[in-house]
Amino acid sequence: MKAEILATGDEIRSGALVDSNSAFIAERLEENGIEVVRHSSVGDDLSILVPTLREIAHRAEVAVVTGGLGPTSDDLSAEAAAAAAGVELALNKDALENVEHFFKTFNRPMTVSNRKQALLPMGSRILYNPVGTAPGFALIIAKCLFFFLPGVPYEMKRMLGEHVIPQLNTLQGDAAMHSRVLTIATFGLPESLAGEKVAGVESLYPGVKLGLRANFPQIQVKLYGRDKDSASLDQRLTGAGGWALARLGPNVISATGERMEAVVGKLLLERSATIALAESCTGGLIADWLTNVAGSSAYFLFSGVTYSNRAKMDLLGVKADTLEKHGAVNEETAREMAIGARRVAGATFGLSTSGIAGPDGGTEAKPVGTLCVGFAGPDRSFGRRLYFPFGKRLMNKKIFAMAALDLLRKELMRPTG
Amino acid sequence: MKAEILATGDEIRSGALVDSNSAFIAERLEENGIEVVRHSSVGDDLSILVPTLREIAHRAEVAVVTGGLGPTSDDLSAEAAAAAAGVELALNKDALENVEHFFKTFNRPMTVSNRKQALLPMGSRILYNPVGTAPGFALIIAKCLFFFLPGVPYEMKRMLGEHVIPQLNTLQGDAAMHSRVLTIATFGLPESLAGEKVAGVESLYPGVKLGLRANFPQIQVKLYGRDKDSASLDQRLTGAGGWALARLGPNVISATGERMEAVVGKLLLERSATIALAESCTGGLIADWLTNVAGSSAYFLFSGVTYSNRAKMDLLGVKADTLEKHGAVNEETAREMAIGARRVAGATFGLSTSGIAGPDGGTEAKPVGTLCVGFAGPDRSFGRRLYFPFGKRLMNKKIFAMAALDLLRKELMRPTG
Repeated sequence: MKAEILATGDEIRSGALVDSNSAFIAERLEENGIEVVRHSSVGDDLSILVPTLREIAHRAEVAVVTGGLGPTSDDLSAEAAAAAAGVELALNKDALENVEHFFKTFNRPMTVSNRKQALLPMGSRILYNPVGTAPGFALIIAKCLFFFLPGVPYEMKRMLGEHVIPQLNTLQGDAAMHSRVLTIATFGLPESLAGEKVAGVESLYPGVKLGLRANFPQIQVKLYGRDKDSASLDQRLTGAGGWALARLGPNVISATGERMEAVVGKLLLERSATIALAESCTGGLIADWLTNVAGSSAYFLFSGVTYSNRAKMDLLGVKADTLEKHGAVNEETAREMAIGARRVAGATFGLSTSGIAGPDGGTEAKPVGTLCVGFAGPDRSFGRRLYFPFGKRLMNKKIFAMAALDLLRKELMRPTG
Repeated sequence: MKAEILATGDEIRSGALVDSNSAFIAERLEENGIEVVRHSSVGDDLSILVPTLREIAHRAEVAVVTGGLGPTSDDLSAEAAAAAAGVELALNKDALENVEHFFKTFNRPMTVSNRKQALLPMGSRILYNPVGTAPGFALIIAKCLFFFLPGVPYEMKRMLGEHVIPQLNTLQGDAAMHSRVLTIATFGLPESLAGEKVAGVESLYPGVKLGLRANFPQIQVKLYGRDKDSASLDQRLTGAGGWALARLGPNVISATGERMEAVVGKLLLERSATIALAESCTGGLIADWLTNVAGSSAYFLFSGVTYSNRAKMDLLGVKADTLEKHGAVNEETAREMAIGARRVAGATFGLSTSGIAGPDGGTEAKPVGTLCVGFAGPDRSFGRRLYFPFGKRLMNKKIFAMAALDLLRKELMRPTG
């Protein structure tokens, strides 16, 4: 079953508002085995709305339209749908009841313009709105079943779940396709190299589609599959996933799409270990990421964001001698920072960053993009120097933070004893 | 001049990724007097891409296409454009140089698949990519001038500003409308209330269009104007801007759209003051934001991300007695944290956060969403309790961090002496 999505509204057309509804709808349709072929967005203008609806009516079997159901004069969806279908608008009693009910429940005065919301194209079926004034409606235009939903995300989501998805599943019946996606999160390979490593998966596992998504500095490798038979789909995707994981090797952060901070958090929890950070160039970003995970207080104890040398010495116990001899951006300095963070917080592990995020501060010996990571654990401590060729301060902060967490992740995965 | 926007990619089509590029492009085009009529999104599939490009070519005068320029096999934009235009692909020397230059500059190995990125439709003109491997290109198909840009937002934005907008302005020539947008950054008003406060601006200043953009937890109030006469446009927008600023009062962070962290940084610089933080519930986010600003090492000294009570006592000197009597989430605890951060870092000001970001840890007296902010300066110190009714951990961290910085901002703006 092929579907299209249409988002209406001048805010979306003009870019004042990012359309997040269409992605939400697409994901829900695809999860239910319906192939989304195209999204469109147009403004509140009948001369564009009507032909757009007609085009969709001749291309798709199902369409979900959002927006334009409100009480104001630029809410034109019902009028456009009627024109596209070649029918008249008529007062729909069920729709009027829906509108009246809302105003009664919420004890708000109903205005004349709200009555307009009950004018629906003849032949349409009301989609009850449990959380707003705007009822939606379903209408067949040409060969396509249209669902018109409100643009308010909260109302749209409720009505998609309560009306659209169940009805589409009934329509599909035995023909329903199952659809799955397997997401592998990786770090350390540029997108092109990650793509090359797994390029063969589509021919080795027919029916599996490969997609790459860069969420800097992580790359997600996605394997999509669709089949009428759920078990054979699972089997194929599991095979393809295993093959891709082997190809991507140590660059895999998780086989489930889980982000670095969640993976590191789980590894710490499994080991009943705690972590303390000393962040210079990452400026608190590692702490921010780690504490985004609910429950992180079980293992995250402390981060000292020490921009100044004084703070590195006073708070972390980095030796004045080390700073004088090697400077702040140095493996030994980073090692002493990690040891200091671990000691002052009483943590199992210490992790530190010192580097040059830019745009200023680079030298020939230590250019912008230079990172020193320090690690301290119960048995050993070390510092390591890395270099990343990205010019931007914010990109550098992100890749520095990710590289430090990746070093910690690999340490946590080392066989102990 | 009528424009369309096409976002390509299976991630967008399937809903795995929200397309924010199209809104950004639409806004920039509209600002420059070009009417955006329609957005579309389709997947990485030649059988859909080619007809979609052809349709757009017959409807629009200008089109901006994003995505599909990468090195992998599902990057199909050049191939689709060539097919839609009825021309062949050919190795473009300038494009190859662009790709090679990128790899040389960043000292990374170029792969065979990267060479594919230099295959462009014959008759197209390369759009140099200064920040990535994928060169874009411009090509006329039917009556429409197409710009093909990468899907990576950072690269797309650079190339839109450097290539597309200047070229469109040249094309428009004298017919060009001047277009301006004035952006006011606010904090502390929900979108609906901010909208109500400035709702009258369109009737008071005819020709000015109002737009609101929520960038949680900041709300941007945007005033758009378009006129053939540049001076009268400036005058009108300045009047409207002054009116809106007066209406929004203390909720204005900046009259230029500048973000909170940059505004606070400038206030600190102007006063030759320094700042130290003690972050509990914000987990390093305030430090991360402040250190995102280039040059922040001039005023940012230290943040102690102290999740544990032990760290609050040992590192910041919070009294055991205070923690025992009042708990970690308390005005007095927050005040002592701010004093401690200020003292240990030798900073002019100390700022602290302690609160309950959730999802767990809330009580009846201190529900999820409770924030205590502490402030310490040369003359005075205090703690303040705030409450935000958002359920989500990441939203709470953001609004907590912003509320703390807003308190600091207001302190920095107090008349001294």
